[in-house]
Amino acid sequence: MANLIAQNTDVLVYSRNPALVEQLAKDRYRFGVKLHDRVRVINDLERVAGECQLIFPIVPSNNFRSMMRSVTKYLEPAHVLIHGTKGLDVTGIHLDDIPKKGISRRQLHTMTDVIKEESVVVRVGALTGPNLAQELLEGQPSASVVASKFDEVIARAQLVLASPQLHVFETYDLLGAELAGVLKNVIALGSGILEGHGLGKNIQAMLITRGLHEMVYFGRALGSENRAFFGTAGIGDLIATATSQKSRNYTFGHRLGKGEKLAEVAATSQELAEGVRTLMITRHLARNLRLRVPITEMLYRIVFEDFPVDEAMNYLITYPYEVDVDFL
Amino acid sequence: MANLIAQNTDVLVYSRNPALVEQLAKDRYRFGVKLHDRVRVINDLERVAGECQLIFPIVPSNNFRSMMRSVTKYLEPAHVLIHGTKGLDVTGIHLDDIPKKGISRRQLHTMTDVIKEESVVVRVGALTGPNLAQELLEGQPSASVVASKFDEVIARAQLVLASPQLHVFETYDLLGAELAGVLKNVIALGSGILEGHGLGKNIQAMLITRGLHEMVYFGRALGSENRAFFGTAGIGDLIATATSQKSRNYTFGHRLGKGEKLAEVAATSQELAEGVRTLMITRHLARNLRLRVPITEMLYRIVFEDFPVDEAMNYLITYPYEVDVDFL
Repeated sequence: MANLIAQNTDVLVYSRNPALVEQLAKDRYRFGVKLHDRVRVINDLERVAGECQLIFPIVPSNNFRSMMRSVTKYLEPAHVLIHGTKGLDVTGIHLDDIPKKGISRRQLHTMTDVIKEESVVVRVGALTGPNLAQELLEGQPSASVVASKFDEVIARAQLVLASPQLHVFETYDLLGAELAGVLKNVIALGSGILEGHGLGKNIQAMLITRGLHEMVYFGRALGSENRAFFGTAGIGDLIATATSQKSRNYTFGHRLGKGEKLAEVAATSQELAEGVRTLMITRHLARNLRLRVPITEMLYRIVFEDFPVDEAMNYLITYPYEVDVDFL
Repeated sequence: MANLIAQNTDVLVYSRNPALVEQLAKDRYRFGVKLHDRVRVINDLERVAGECQLIFPIVPSNNFRSMMRSVTKYLEPAHVLIHGTKGLDVTGIHLDDIPKKGISRRQLHTMTDVIKEESVVVRVGALTGPNLAQELLEGQPSASVVASKFDEVIARAQLVLASPQLHVFETYDLLGAELAGVLKNVIALGSGILEGHGLGKNIQAMLITRGLHEMVYFGRALGSENRAFFGTAGIGDLIATATSQKSRNYTFGHRLGKGEKLAEVAATSQELAEGVRTLMITRHLARNLRLRVPITEMLYRIVFEDFPVDEAMNYLITYPYEVDVDFL
């Protein structure tokens, strides 16, 4: 991301790890890619907030609120924050307690909710869309979506992001775009499970299509429009993530499909895939809201309750869907 | 298909090739798969029409009308015809003459149009959805869509097709379902071109997402609803076809993306991919109808005019799309 933005302007990258900052200052290489000359890496949040008006917070969802709390004292109303995190915040309840306690709409926060709750910042946005990190590192072309209620946020993002490598779409449907990016991880996880289990493209296509419908139902239940789900932030991101071995959620699911247990995969992964967290949250939210989401339910049982994949597939194939498309 | 249906009822398969019929009667093997005991292969169209009320014509689009003309004298109003052909009919103009003469909506026929024009049959339908033939042969599970204006056609199709291997969705949007199945071949061709050219999943996802939008525009211009495009017949089929090496259109495009010329690929393929025919037709139709379909335009130039893939991608990435989703 920093290298992409550096094509248009100077970039300060913050890392909370001083050793990494020092190493990058010397090597100028990260993930096998040379840092652009206009990128500086620092360990000083106050300086980031002081020198930059436009900030892209991109951290896992379970660290997002604490990150915001550590930077909030440096933020002013003039700052623009556009996050790139595809997960949900459920502060106040530990993930493992959700099966016992359940979860309600009120306990759920998007990342822009968190930014607004934890700081004086008003101009918030989300950067989403099909952006497999590894491909961006390879210099592959891509398309992103910047979502915000504010024209000036969208314009600022366009100015620093758009390039011959990156087409930047715009949408005012902030909640829809955030939710689409979040919910698609669950389907990507499921798609990985199917392929890991030896199943083919036909049934993967059914999972993705019906999964998109469940995403739309969730979006509606949480108060968003349909729109974003049918664009680059929805279908686009879903296809890239659910069909690529380079996607973390997909590869996480692939190992589950091969027969590994959740604990084994989690223990040997760099971090818990966002899709696993989201699945835990959305399945219990669906119960609370009485949503009919059979794919979410089956994936939950496979991932958290060792339900056999074959039985889950059989359940889904014979599920009495009344009609194919009922949300338009 | 015959083997799938044979799980529910007796099946007569017609082949126009007497040698093949004789061979199959002896071997009982086709494409490495054993024919179901309830499948008989014959060379007698009159007997097919005499013994079967429900017929599935599945032949390439450029032979469809002549096939109908050869069977029509045996057909009665009581027959039910559900085709599985994903192409368009442009009788009256040779494909190679289209660039010179152009093409209008009036010259375009779906396969159900052709059935109704060439026979007394009223109860028509289309079978579509993500059905990669090779995966069906392997016994992989899948989902199909049966589209018809008639409840009895849909019910008959359900009765003979639905099984633990195949979920059958239903839709009344016949034109939408037919067009979705046809138009997605062009995007699958394009997706193969991108991958053959060494491009990644991010940009493939953009092609598929924006390609779906162009499919919707075409559908509207040709008089169909949006609905089918967002279901299994649309998104579902598109994803399976545009991301699988087992899809003919995808592999055809892949060779073009590697640098082979259309004539070379066509000469060494069993048949011209439906997507190539459809691309020729839709691009000129778009001109006639003044549709703004940049992906169709770029693919046309790559396939038929040797336009460089890189320049086409650059054009698409920097294309001034106003908003991401403008059809809802």
